[in-house]
Amino acid sequence: MDSNASPIRWENGQLFLLDQTLLPNETQWKVYTRGVAVAGAIQTMVVRGAPAIGIAAAYGMVLAFKQAVTRTQTWNDLLPQLEQQRDILRESRPTAVNLMWAVDQQWDLIHAAAAEGKSPEQALVALENRARDIHEEDLTANIRMGDLGARLLPAHASILTHCNAGGLATAGYGTALGVIRSAYKSGKCAQVFADETRPRLQGAKLTTYELVASGIPTTLICDNMAASLMKAGKIDAVIVGADRIAANGDVANKIGTYNVAVLAQYHQVPFYVAAPLSTFDLSLVNGDSIPIEERQPEEITVVNGERLAPEAVSVYNPAFDVTPAELVTAIITPEGIIKPPSSETVKACFEQAKAPKALPLG
Amino acid sequence: MDSNASPIRWENGQLFLLDQTLLPNETQWKVYTRGVAVAGAIQTMVVRGAPAIGIAAAYGMVLAFKQAVTRTQTWNDLLPQLEQQRDILRESRPTAVNLMWAVDQQWDLIHAAAAEGKSPEQALVALENRARDIHEEDLTANIRMGDLGARLLPAHASILTHCNAGGLATAGYGTALGVIRSAYKSGKCAQVFADETRPRLQGAKLTTYELVASGIPTTLICDNMAASLMKAGKIDAVIVGADRIAANGDVANKIGTYNVAVLAQYHQVPFYVAAPLSTFDLSLVNGDSIPIEERQPEEITVVNGERLAPEAVSVYNPAFDVTPAELVTAIITPEGIIKPPSSETVKACFEQAKAPKALPLG
Repeated sequence: MDSNASPIRWENGQLFLLDQTLLPNETQWKVYTRGVAVAGAIQTMVVRGAPAIGIAAAYGMVLAFKQAVTRTQTWNDLLPQLEQQRDILRESRPTAVNLMWAVDQQWDLIHAAAAEGKSPEQALVALENRARDIHEEDLTANIRMGDLGARLLPAHASILTHCNAGGLATAGYGTALGVIRSAYKSGKCAQVFADETRPRLQGAKLTTYELVASGIPTTLICDNMAASLMKAGKIDAVIVGADRIAANGDVANKIGTYNVAVLAQYHQVPFYVAAPLSTFDLSLVNGDSIPIEERQPEEITVVNGERLAPEAVSVYNPAFDVTPAELVTAIITPEGIIKPPSSETVKACFEQAKAPKALPLG
Repeated sequence: MDSNASPIRWENGQLFLLDQTLLPNETQWKVYTRGVAVAGAIQTMVVRGAPAIGIAAAYGMVLAFKQAVTRTQTWNDLLPQLEQQRDILRESRPTAVNLMWAVDQQWDLIHAAAAEGKSPEQALVALENRARDIHEEDLTANIRMGDLGARLLPAHASILTHCNAGGLATAGYGTALGVIRSAYKSGKCAQVFADETRPRLQGAKLTTYELVASGIPTTLICDNMAASLMKAGKIDAVIVGADRIAANGDVANKIGTYNVAVLAQYHQVPFYVAAPLSTFDLSLVNGDSIPIEERQPEEITVVNGERLAPEAVSVYNPAFDVTPAELVTAIITPEGIIKPPSSETVKACFEQAKAPKALPLG
């Protein structure tokens, strides 16, 4: 693993994904040459984390396009095929909005190329460049976001994080773990507590893996231990990532995030969310209408082939929950800090991001 | 399993324990003939749950005595040997106060018999009778407590429980699950949500096992899912057991209980604790000085032989946490409801329990 924990590589027109279902015991890269295979990798969580899913899906559209043009060069034949592939990719994880954002970006580009009478070859080059841009911009944005977020923390902070919003969930460096990386470098972070994050244990398997590899002191706990650590004054801040953020700052993220947010408020511990602007879904007024993916019962009842619960029991397994904006101290984005999150402050951040960075001379 | 989920049997001077480490996949009774072996069973959680540990330890003292009298009949030789066995039993789980209570009851009896010049044979009969009394009284107390606690619930309640405070944790019927059993019979409980209770998964393995066996509709969730269920209005009450309760009503119980208590208060869901009076430790003014057992890191990092986290990571694994009395709506005991828990109401309950049940005639 490189020092940024990047889980995605694009080489010679092929997509390489670090198989995160095998971590921390095995480091295996898988190669993808078809769009539907990328959708499968997203669904089975070979690649996971909203930003990483978006990047993989952007490349997935490139692969889908490449495959389609081997069969036909006519836009009229290409478009319906690509529309189908787009939908398969879009539906591979319903909660992560970066996925929709990246796929739609690629789809708009295809549509525009067709409308402008460009050749499929020209469109393919543009698609590949766009995917590379999304990939590279995510990494630089994470570093920017990390440096920005680290400023919010007191010196030598002890930080709790939930799930994995790390390099592994992004192009590298990470969102929540990006803030932790920057904070650790500048002496703001002394140690990290990582929730194991049931049922899929991304905290135990991925967050500890990448933080230990980066030399950041990390202690693993079960999700239900955070409250007593907070009560004992051992947590100075909570930082998590996000899968989708509504226009008012409500945050959908890995199941258990809302749990931690309630605990943080009760113990007066600041609760931060770190996410790129592509994680925002401004079409949603608030978090109530964010679709919450429910996953297989076996994620809870079976570990490593061992049944943990009787066959006859019912299981409820939502993959995400929604944390209302009022429990979020601030949302850290690469374009600035949204504090406190609200419809107004979210809107202001987007407007500032669109504004020219410097006034023209003269 | 019988309908009360009793995990302890005493037959022909031998102790039989249902091996709870093998549930829900295997139902195996283990036989014990030595006191130290019972201490081992407590330590490795073959038997667990504060009341069940107390009962097992009471029988453990009988077995220790039996073994000692095969070697000597002199009180002067017997007493030091038994004192050692007492300490081994007492130290097998530091948090469960019923353990200390039961072992000390037996020790007092031994001491009194020696002081009164009784024969070791006479003392053995008394010890065995005392263990049987503790065993039987726990079962009848649980049924009384269950019926009493059920009255606190609204009709058709949806109840969340954490860990296993069931028949399996007691002589049978259960403390928290005893209330649920009584409530289900009287139409007060429509369904149960069971926290899986990491790291040892007593909720997944034991609570679902015994509730499903009793035909009570049960849904298993991960510990971090309770908050979103409460937010959605799907939990009407929380009921848990206790390992030790201080004189002011602070409750030490399975790790994650405090987590649930904070969530319950935030969502205005009543939070009940069900426990016999033997779970109270009136020598402690509050919960601050309750010793919290820390267990092996591998309970978190290894499941069924699979490593879930990198070897290099630190782990924090407290087995219990303390819920302050102000987060507890009421403590349900066989002698009455303590509501709201405080030094005064706890004291009043104990005084009432000691008072004669009926005034003498005339």
